[in-house]
Amino acid sequence: MSEIAERLLAGEQRALSRLITLLERGDPAAAEAMKVVDGHTGRAYTVGITGPPGAGKSTIVDQLTQLVRETGSTVGIIAVDPTSPFSGGAILGDRIRMQRHYLDSGVFIRSVATRGQSGGLPRIVKSMVRALDASGIDLILVETVGVGQTELGIISVADTVLVALNPESGDTIQTLKAGVMEIADLYLVNKADRDGANQMATAITGMLHMAINSPKWSPPVLLTTAHTGQGIDELWNKIEEHRKFLTTSGELNERRGRQRRREFLEAVEEVLAQRLRDRVENDPSLNAILEKIAAKETDPYSAALEFLDSSLFSANWLNPE
Amino acid sequence: MSEIAERLLAGEQRALSRLITLLERGDPAAAEAMKVVDGHTGRAYTVGITGPPGAGKSTIVDQLTQLVRETGSTVGIIAVDPTSPFSGGAILGDRIRMQRHYLDSGVFIRSVATRGQSGGLPRIVKSMVRALDASGIDLILVETVGVGQTELGIISVADTVLVALNPESGDTIQTLKAGVMEIADLYLVNKADRDGANQMATAITGMLHMAINSPKWSPPVLLTTAHTGQGIDELWNKIEEHRKFLTTSGELNERRGRQRRREFLEAVEEVLAQRLRDRVENDPSLNAILEKIAAKETDPYSAALEFLDSSLFSANWLNPE
Repeated sequence: MSEIAERLLAGEQRALSRLITLLERGDPAAAEAMKVVDGHTGRAYTVGITGPPGAGKSTIVDQLTQLVRETGSTVGIIAVDPTSPFSGGAILGDRIRMQRHYLDSGVFIRSVATRGQSGGLPRIVKSMVRALDASGIDLILVETVGVGQTELGIISVADTVLVALNPESGDTIQTLKAGVMEIADLYLVNKADRDGANQMATAITGMLHMAINSPKWSPPVLLTTAHTGQGIDELWNKIEEHRKFLTTSGELNERRGRQRRREFLEAVEEVLAQRLRDRVENDPSLNAILEKIAAKETDPYSAALEFLDSSLFSANWLNPE
Repeated sequence: MSEIAERLLAGEQRALSRLITLLERGDPAAAEAMKVVDGHTGRAYTVGITGPPGAGKSTIVDQLTQLVRETGSTVGIIAVDPTSPFSGGAILGDRIRMQRHYLDSGVFIRSVATRGQSGGLPRIVKSMVRALDASGIDLILVETVGVGQTELGIISVADTVLVALNPESGDTIQTLKAGVMEIADLYLVNKADRDGANQMATAITGMLHMAINSPKWSPPVLLTTAHTGQGIDELWNKIEEHRKFLTTSGELNERRGRQRRREFLEAVEEVLAQRLRDRVENDPSLNAILEKIAAKETDPYSAALEFLDSSLFSANWLNPE
């Protein structure tokens, strides 16, 4: 059995840090450990928080952490940074705001950069959530700072998805149309002390009436002012309410099952793509097709189809010898 | 032969619009047309423009278009929008600024939303560039508004990559570190009438001295004030100079060859991933493995490796019957 997994399951926080480092490096020992760790997951509850820059996500995470720590539960925070080449040091600033929890051994904080990894939420984040879960942490908060697929991908790890906006978040209708409505379990208009907060909340509620996803759960729309703590109690109550809904309806297990199934599929794609790249770099039998592409005798897409349907590919080309 | 390709090669602008619409829909007729179109590419010159929001990319594109149109050359503009769920209507606003070219039949403008497509610059953008090229357009400007992989992916279609910044673009060192230095052929500090423009240009030049990519081409750092047109002539001269460098050194053909090779690889990955998804949805022989995953007898990643090395996959599982 993986030694690191053993130490992690015994509750050693250093083993948790170490495993995450191994995951980040893509060390084979991490994959070995995850085989063991995986069987000990499912006890923690995971809340995903997403929203545009400036919605106050880190402050919300900070306040929720404070509130939950007062009940004695432990908290794990994962800040996902898709690392745009142009995003600069925004994350670092956010993390500094969290520093009041750094000395609290009941709070585990880790940022993860996901640059260069395509698709939705990268596998490493899912493994991190699982490692935190198995280590005995009660509540896991996953915050995505970024755009697009990674943000929407938060649904692939979260039991409850919280979408945070602020009154200046721009055209509400546009914002909600683009895939967010399908993933949100709770809406939060933060910075509610600013103009336009009520109007935004009303607009969101209006949109929700037009398009209800689940007949059983209507996403509530909350107003908070995270920097003063206003509305955080109510937010936590709603998260608990959603958790109760998921548990009693059986939806929690179903949702987690779908997430695991999707993760399998993504892992197959990832490994296939890697093997493919390795082969294309090293296999001289591809030269003929690459020369045809270079000479414009075929376009790259048609060449790809031709290759995949050729005996070259069929002969278990992707399986390592 | 594809009728639409024939009309496009005859220079019918409506055929170009139609082909792009077919590409956006994923219509098989588009793939058919691209087989023909591909053989008629290589005449146009493609400039990619990337940079953080607020760098003035659209204004630069607008001014370059104006300048190039005065020489009689035709211009195609592709604005790539990775469509964050939170990006709102920013693109639309940018496009409105371009409206002075809408009545000019020598300018072809098209925005493309790439939401839900993973990886670098999506295949559709590459096909669009190729379609514009084959239709006889002289200069193609590809502007990416967004973050991360898509921005860096612009190198996969561009002959010259232009990175636009402004004096407020934040920590220069951070900005340039994250992959941008490897792709930029030209730097442009726009909004040069604002404080800090010269300092930023100096900082970039300093960075470049430390890490020169090509011994033959040193990326120049230009100052522009796009909204007044200041520096646009010089920018265009430098683009022409880079083009001459690429042509005489043979690097242009090499670069384009690498792009086509990479595009083949990406297409293989894309088609494989699609076939995989179709199979996982429909193949009952996968049920055993999915049940093991659900029961936590295996973690999704290990299950993926196991599956790929099993006889289930080896038996040409991904090839359609």
